[in-house]
Amino acid sequence: MSVLAKDNDFYSLHGIWGADAALALGRIGRGSGMVVGDVQPPRRGMAVGYKVGSSDPVFLPFIPNIRVGLGADAYQAEEASADAAAHPEVLPGGIALKFFGSTDIERRLSMSGESWTAGKMTLEVVSFFGSVPDPASASREILREKMCPAIYARVCFDNRESDEPMIGVFGMQGVRRPLSDTPALGLLGFAHRGEWGFAARPEEGVSEVMDWMSLAACFDPGRRVLRHLANEGCLKFNVPPRQKKEYLVALGAFRDGIVTQGLKTRAFQNTLFTDLDDILVHALKVASSRLAEAHRLDVELDSRSLSDDRKFLICHAAHSYNASTELLVDESGSPIFIVNEGEYQMMNTLDLTVDQVFHELYYSPWTVKNELDFFFSRSSYRDSIGLAFCHDQGVSDCFTPQGTSSYELPWLTGCFSFMSYEETLNWILCACLYTHNADDGSWLRAHMESFEDAVTSIISRDRNGDGVMDVDSDRCDGGAEITTYDSLDVSLGQARNNLYVAVKAWGALVSAAAVLQAKANDQKAMSLADKALSCASLIAKTVVSRVDPQQGYIPAVFEGGNTSKIIPAVEALVYPYFSGVPDAVHVDGPYGDLISALKKHLDVVLVPGVCLDPVSGGWKLSSTSRNTWPSKIFISQFVAEEILGMKDGRTTRDAAHVAWQCNGCADYAATDQLDSATGKDMGSRLYPRLVSSILWQHPPIQ
Amino acid sequence: MSVLAKDNDFYSLHGIWGADAALALGRIGRGSGMVVGDVQPPRRGMAVGYKVGSSDPVFLPFIPNIRVGLGADAYQAEEASADAAAHPEVLPGGIALKFFGSTDIERRLSMSGESWTAGKMTLEVVSFFGSVPDPASASREILREKMCPAIYARVCFDNRESDEPMIGVFGMQGVRRPLSDTPALGLLGFAHRGEWGFAARPEEGVSEVMDWMSLAACFDPGRRVLRHLANEGCLKFNVPPRQKKEYLVALGAFRDGIVTQGLKTRAFQNTLFTDLDDILVHALKVASSRLAEAHRLDVELDSRSLSDDRKFLICHAAHSYNASTELLVDESGSPIFIVNEGEYQMMNTLDLTVDQVFHELYYSPWTVKNELDFFFSRSSYRDSIGLAFCHDQGVSDCFTPQGTSSYELPWLTGCFSFMSYEETLNWILCACLYTHNADDGSWLRAHMESFEDAVTSIISRDRNGDGVMDVDSDRCDGGAEITTYDSLDVSLGQARNNLYVAVKAWGALVSAAAVLQAKANDQKAMSLADKALSCASLIAKTVVSRVDPQQGYIPAVFEGGNTSKIIPAVEALVYPYFSGVPDAVHVDGPYGDLISALKKHLDVVLVPGVCLDPVSGGWKLSSTSRNTWPSKIFISQFVAEEILGMKDGRTTRDAAHVAWQCNGCADYAATDQLDSATGKDMGSRLYPRLVSSILWQHPPIQ
Repeated sequence: MSVLAKDNDFYSLHGIWGADAALALGRIGRGSGMVVGDVQPPRRGMAVGYKVGSSDPVFLPFIPNIRVGLGADAYQAEEASADAAAHPEVLPGGIALKFFGSTDIERRLSMSGESWTAGKMTLEVVSFFGSVPDPASASREILREKMCPAIYARVCFDNRESDEPMIGVFGMQGVRRPLSDTPALGLLGFAHRGEWGFAARPEEGVSEVMDWMSLAACFDPGRRVLRHLANEGCLKFNVPPRQKKEYLVALGAFRDGIVTQGLKTRAFQNTLFTDLDDILVHALKVASSRLAEAHRLDVELDSRSLSDDRKFLICHAAHSYNASTELLVDESGSPIFIVNEGEYQMMNTLDLTVDQVFHELYYSPWTVKNELDFFFSRSSYRDSIGLAFCHDQGVSDCFTPQGTSSYELPWLTGCFSFMSYEETLNWILCACLYTHNADDGSWLRAHMESFEDAVTSIISRDRNGDGVMDVDSDRCDGGAEITTYDSLDVSLGQARNNLYVAVKAWGALVSAAAVLQAKANDQKAMSLADKALSCASLIAKTVVSRVDPQQGYIPAVFEGGNTSKIIPAVEALVYPYFSGVPDAVHVDGPYGDLISALKKHLDVVLVPGVCLDPVSGGWKLSSTSRNTWPSKIFISQFVAEEILGMKDGRTTRDAAHVAWQCNGCADYAATDQLDSATGKDMGSRLYPRLVSSILWQHPPIQ
Repeated sequence: MSVLAKDNDFYSLHGIWGADAALALGRIGRGSGMVVGDVQPPRRGMAVGYKVGSSDPVFLPFIPNIRVGLGADAYQAEEASADAAAHPEVLPGGIALKFFGSTDIERRLSMSGESWTAGKMTLEVVSFFGSVPDPASASREILREKMCPAIYARVCFDNRESDEPMIGVFGMQGVRRPLSDTPALGLLGFAHRGEWGFAARPEEGVSEVMDWMSLAACFDPGRRVLRHLANEGCLKFNVPPRQKKEYLVALGAFRDGIVTQGLKTRAFQNTLFTDLDDILVHALKVASSRLAEAHRLDVELDSRSLSDDRKFLICHAAHSYNASTELLVDESGSPIFIVNEGEYQMMNTLDLTVDQVFHELYYSPWTVKNELDFFFSRSSYRDSIGLAFCHDQGVSDCFTPQGTSSYELPWLTGCFSFMSYEETLNWILCACLYTHNADDGSWLRAHMESFEDAVTSIISRDRNGDGVMDVDSDRCDGGAEITTYDSLDVSLGQARNNLYVAVKAWGALVSAAAVLQAKANDQKAMSLADKALSCASLIAKTVVSRVDPQQGYIPAVFEGGNTSKIIPAVEALVYPYFSGVPDAVHVDGPYGDLISALKKHLDVVLVPGVCLDPVSGGWKLSSTSRNTWPSKIFISQFVAEEILGMKDGRTTRDAAHVAWQCNGCADYAATDQLDSATGKDMGSRLYPRLVSSILWQHPPIQ
């Protein structure tokens, strides 16, 4: 009921939906534990293991030999060092500490989390529970369950084969507060201030251990008291001989006070919970219902006829996506949904939104509406041509001023330049997908004016009448617009006369016309749809005219004699397909010439040494760059297989794509920019965008 | 108007009173900048320097070559590293970055702050403003001025000798929010989220620079825009040729939401300020009045006939003390004053309180009352003998449960055991000092019952009738009580039959009787005073009986044949002296035998190789340990000189004590446990307690 990881030594980021928090674990011998307000795995350890009778204790490899905070020596005028060994191999009392090695472990990923089985124990992390209801309509009780910023660890200790007692342990470094200090909670566990913590219900044989060397203390047969000055705490489980026991631990996160600057907001969960302790209590109270929900997700994924590699990528992506999600509430009480941009921490990067939209529409479509509205109200602007949208809305919980992004700068022609044209397409595309898949047209009708402005703005950015964008926003002030593929070479970098952007514009205009015709059936809408379709036809004609007559591919840029070959030429076919006009992307449909040309293009470029990496075998987005992006690969894989009907050995290169995440990018779950040959991370680490892989699981959102 | 530092390469911790925040700076080439919620200097840099015309820019040495956050390369798929060089020696554009060396710099400490003068610039930090009014009686406007959690940096650039323009810079790493993003503030500067920031008023020639390499950007003659993705920001000052300009920068800190656990409290300042921006605006608004206050402090210290060494220690101590102060407000609106214990982060450690009380009584006596009341209500308990007090009230903003501390543990005989007896003395002593120096007796009368319980409890802990404590609290559960000197050897470690503790008990009982007689003139008070005096006489007799007839010293412990010689035998004479009974500590007074014996004792031990370190020349608290504690030395120096009349070359070892702070303890301003021979830090780093040095400046609080 899950996917076996081929390799055990890579990070997972088990995000807590909406809480800007995660449990990071998985790199052997490296930091593990909770992280709040960021996505970087912590320099701390997590102790999950056991000891049977007088044998040596053995732990999962989540404990780097790092001391957190001061040791007892610092109080006793002995040599102290913040990096001193906290857990040497031999503990006081002569207890030798052992760790399971990679080959001792069976690691499995599931839609709802993952499990580590080794020796006589299993740790199961349950972090994803699927849909989150719209706060505009759900009751407070429902929200307290579905938005409870907590995940679970289920630890199972199997002592059935032993006549000796077993001691199981679940603990973390970085905690200073035993929950038993507040007896009214009725919890055992530990917390880091009011920010994060873990808790279990008191029951026979479960106790708290807090000590300078808490592992040694767990196995000390003598009397112990809690040492509040220590920086680590464990739950100790006494498992009697011949018994198997399972314990449930809730892991919660809380951020108090004003969380963002520029625009003042708090964590939305603060409207539902008074503090971390409230969250931990409630998480355990609603555990059975949430765990059942998680189980349903796992059954659903298992039921799909997908390769294990694809299932793996879907699960890994969903967990990391959650780590970047952040639900806020402004001073008027309105919720604001943010997806932070992984390691970059930019807030609601619109060219990520358009790729994450498939995942969001399936699980929590109201978040897409929230993004659309907030992008329009805060992060749109008008340049001399028309309405345009910003790249993002701020960085590191600091909103940038109205109508600006943290990323875009004038006077540039490469990275950090404006993406006005593509971001405007992205907003239109999100609006189309939302309207077709999750709305009765009321959103579109209510936003008709801005939707019309956006479509008109796109059409107006073609000056020579070929439909294709050929004028840069004056915000560039002498520079030139770029595309979301900002760190690739010019084949995908420049927006003007760019194949990828041209097809995306075509897709946006065709989709816009479709939703206008279907959901806003009035004169004005029909007129706008006609204009959009006219422009789309021009673009289609232009793109087809650019086919290289000898080789049959379409060059990446329609100027300067460019001959780069790119996969994302076909990416945008996904939008009409899911916006109610699948015929538009059919070779026998109204744009048959374009679709046939693109299919031929993909057929030509999808060969080793061009857009299949000759070393790894993985997809290479551009023939002229080794920097490749998994989230974008997943979309184009879907287009190739499901829309263009090209499912074969060239499209099912998933084993290579899994290997990239587990090897070269093992430090950075999940990574969205890497070297197609070596698999080594190149950027976009700890990233949310890989949830575009949901297309394999849930095509039927059309 | 300040003291020249003999050495430039040591940290100062410029605490912001009550804000649990500080500006750390001073170790050459090491991290500098703001720290909130802790006292450890940050791994970040601070840029203060200038460039004249086409010459190389030169900076104060506050910039370690550390990158904070991601660099531009991380967005461009180039090799990135969190520790990569952010400020290589040669900046883009071929600008060579230079730093002033130790010998180029004049560093001066003053009561209100410190200054760094080098080349054509001066940086002055103004961090201490003296008294803080009682929130129970002061108006909101007064509190907004006096408790404004902000300090100042005054930067002066002298370009009078040049015909070329000068560019001055003040900047910090770790900031992501330009204050100009919120135009309504009318500020220039930068902030780290809503937590800390620095701000100047907009004026001609002042601008913000935010860039991946902000120093290079400051000196770039081309156009620049703010790069919001960068992690550092500078204020850039254009100083015209032939002019000298001074700029004022406010540095503020803010902690939102619930700050403490166990007992829920917020920062008291949140009742006065809405956010960091409000603080920065107000800090600049009230700057002239606050700077005038700071100036008065400096004039006051300058006017004292004290050696520069002692002035240095007084200033250094006051700045670090402020860094550990934290004013909270509970859910009922009552303020709670906390002094955190430096690197240990314990909250209101009572054996620190009793040493810091002299400083607090002079500047803000209401904080002592607050500590007394909160200790009684939250951190007192009753063992089988009577009322007793806890060592502390929690750690790292986590209050421990009612009647417990984070430090004390059962079953021990050394470090981490209980200090029930000494902490009860400490509470009585603080009550006496507060009553005599800052109150009309109303506090004592209102707390008569608890005061009586405490005194009675002390008396009851002598079982053999010699007055001296000889029974351990049953909380020790088989262990033995210790003293505040927990990490010294047994000479000062064991509480039972301990010379230091015996004299401290004598001092507490004599002081208690004095304030009872003076301020609570009723039958019950007189009866208690009599009991206290009887016990004090017994103790005096016992101590005198322990004088070694040959050598004339008194052994540290009255059992086990102990022969250690300790300076703190005389420490407690300070209490009666400042509690209204200076006669009690006079050789011709009612306890003449005791005082004479102690004077003789000090005379005997204060010799090289015994309690004067033979290597450094500094004071060595115990003949049998090299671990010595400056805060305690200062008190005993005061007793020796002002009470026992022993001021001579043996007591004025201040040069050695200054050297300890500036050399061996340079990393940890200020340090209160160090090796008396080498001066190397051994514990109690970044510590508040050294403000006992105020005794040299303000004896007249009696």
